[in-house]
Amino acid sequence: MSVKVAVFVAGSWGTALSEVLAQNGCNVSLWTRNERQAEEINTKHSNHKYLPDVTLHPDLHATCSMEEAMEGAEACLIVAPSAAMRQVTRQMKPYFTDKMIIVHATKGFETETLKRMSEVIAEELECGEDRIAVLSGPSHAEEVVRQCPTTVVVASTSTETGEKAQDLFMNESFFRVYTNQDVIGVELAGSLKNIIALGAGLSDGIGYGDNAKAALITRGLAEIARLGVVMGANALTFAGLAGVGDLVVTCTSQHSRNWRAGSLIGQGHAVDEVLSQMGMVVEGIRTTKAAYLLARQYDVQLPITEQLHRVLFDGKEPKKAVEHLMGRVRKNEIEEVAKSSWS
Amino acid sequence: MSVKVAVFVAGSWGTALSEVLAQNGCNVSLWTRNERQAEEINTKHSNHKYLPDVTLHPDLHATCSMEEAMEGAEACLIVAPSAAMRQVTRQMKPYFTDKMIIVHATKGFETETLKRMSEVIAEELECGEDRIAVLSGPSHAEEVVRQCPTTVVVASTSTETGEKAQDLFMNESFFRVYTNQDVIGVELAGSLKNIIALGAGLSDGIGYGDNAKAALITRGLAEIARLGVVMGANALTFAGLAGVGDLVVTCTSQHSRNWRAGSLIGQGHAVDEVLSQMGMVVEGIRTTKAAYLLARQYDVQLPITEQLHRVLFDGKEPKKAVEHLMGRVRKNEIEEVAKSSWS
Repeated sequence: MSVKVAVFVAGSWGTALSEVLAQNGCNVSLWTRNERQAEEINTKHSNHKYLPDVTLHPDLHATCSMEEAMEGAEACLIVAPSAAMRQVTRQMKPYFTDKMIIVHATKGFETETLKRMSEVIAEELECGEDRIAVLSGPSHAEEVVRQCPTTVVVASTSTETGEKAQDLFMNESFFRVYTNQDVIGVELAGSLKNIIALGAGLSDGIGYGDNAKAALITRGLAEIARLGVVMGANALTFAGLAGVGDLVVTCTSQHSRNWRAGSLIGQGHAVDEVLSQMGMVVEGIRTTKAAYLLARQYDVQLPITEQLHRVLFDGKEPKKAVEHLMGRVRKNEIEEVAKSSWS
Repeated sequence: MSVKVAVFVAGSWGTALSEVLAQNGCNVSLWTRNERQAEEINTKHSNHKYLPDVTLHPDLHATCSMEEAMEGAEACLIVAPSAAMRQVTRQMKPYFTDKMIIVHATKGFETETLKRMSEVIAEELECGEDRIAVLSGPSHAEEVVRQCPTTVVVASTSTETGEKAQDLFMNESFFRVYTNQDVIGVELAGSLKNIIALGAGLSDGIGYGDNAKAALITRGLAEIARLGVVMGANALTFAGLAGVGDLVVTCTSQHSRNWRAGSLIGQGHAVDEVLSQMGMVVEGIRTTKAAYLLARQYDVQLPITEQLHRVLFDGKEPKKAVEHLMGRVRKNEIEEVAKSSWS
């Protein structure tokens, strides 16, 4: 009998990962608050708003009932926006049993508490972190549903949970899954890279070229690794799929909503206008605020985050912020990079 | 009086760096073997073949006389193709004086000896490595001549030479130069990343997406750092501008001839056909051969290089090579990355 997996919620990444699971023979129950969306998925096998022009697996079943979604499930995959994570997991609690593991693929922090997603999940479901895994890596949803070759990492403090999650998602045709024990690193790398993606978009939006963007990505990676390490992450995770890999795909592709938001702001559009125009959550904006506060809490220098924060929340002109980052002081590179704790 | 710099030769990068030097007030003497090209630069202020639609600095002077180029120069900038490095430096020798430093910006190895460019220069000019610096980093020539913000690294074992080179190139408007002492690392990162760029092009040419390319870049970076470290490089250099930075710009931009060559081969064109069609040196192809041999010499596993070598020199089908790289074994990410000696 096939393994049942409950998935929350039916955005583009949640739907794409549901497709992978259905493709792998899982019995997937995709929960959504939106009845019309559930009906569209069940009758038309499409999720037009989030994955236009895609025909979904016929066995992919959507429901608005949390009880129905979770009953008999061996795993729950949570891909809610970070701002909704506490609410969704709180609603899940009555149906959460000892037989389930949790895999989440949500980027970002809880803004009010600066907690990581697995911390929020463990609190609300009152379970040990050994039952939680995080999935991350360079993976545009649009490409995954087209079955383009994709490689991700699944991290859990428990080898058993990590390998169980790996078994659910990995297949031989297009979806490759590495394991990793560094939950903190994978969560932080995946979340913080959205800041750098915003910055790369900003640079592109201003009209700077690939040279400037590459310099920004390089320094950005060193910057987020620096914060990660003081928060308990393994620096090597930032050199892996959840770090370099995800950063490259996010900063160089126009699929990325963080890059797109940055690009529009760089072109001179107001932040509020961009957010309403995009009609989607831009995690990088919330994450910039969180990282700005974490930098103060952990006493770490994050120059790119600092300048982005000024653009997003203090009305600083984007061009002035990037010029500030280009700086004028003559520096030794290794001293700069070494500060990032790569070594 | 302005500092005189002799530049060899007038390809796109040599000409772009000459522009930076002229912009900074240097007296630049650009050497070329081609009389028509020298005349074009001196009379029309253009170098149409290598930098179309660009008007060069009026003070940029070209010459076919090595003696004229080098007389009174305080620095020589060499940007010859790697295959021509020994010949060019041998010709320079009679005019090389104790007052000159050498900066080179050439990627690749001497294929026959597997020597790095600074080793070839030191041998032919019979000078200490303390008089040589290497300039590298994410820097498309086309963007530099348009004065787009650009950041590079200059490495020399001598702080004095490094800082002298930094002074020549750095300016406050668009060209930022970091110093670094790791000559081996900067030379290797800059050269070896062309292999990964070829591989990224191959993946794009086959029609795989951004997810596959990002996974390839991530594993590629770990792979070239692994070889670099056993050859004496500092792993941190690979996390800096000459490593991550240059790799990002090369793998994600269609300016890159290595990416373009890989892409054409991925589309099914024969290697010989691609080379004649491009009419330019594709350093990544020579470098793949060199790295393949170095991997044997130093007993290091380089799976991406290995597969590319088979495509380029043994007629392996590109799709089969990339499929091989996607692999099928379930692995732990950190164990994989740690093997790369990032730590």
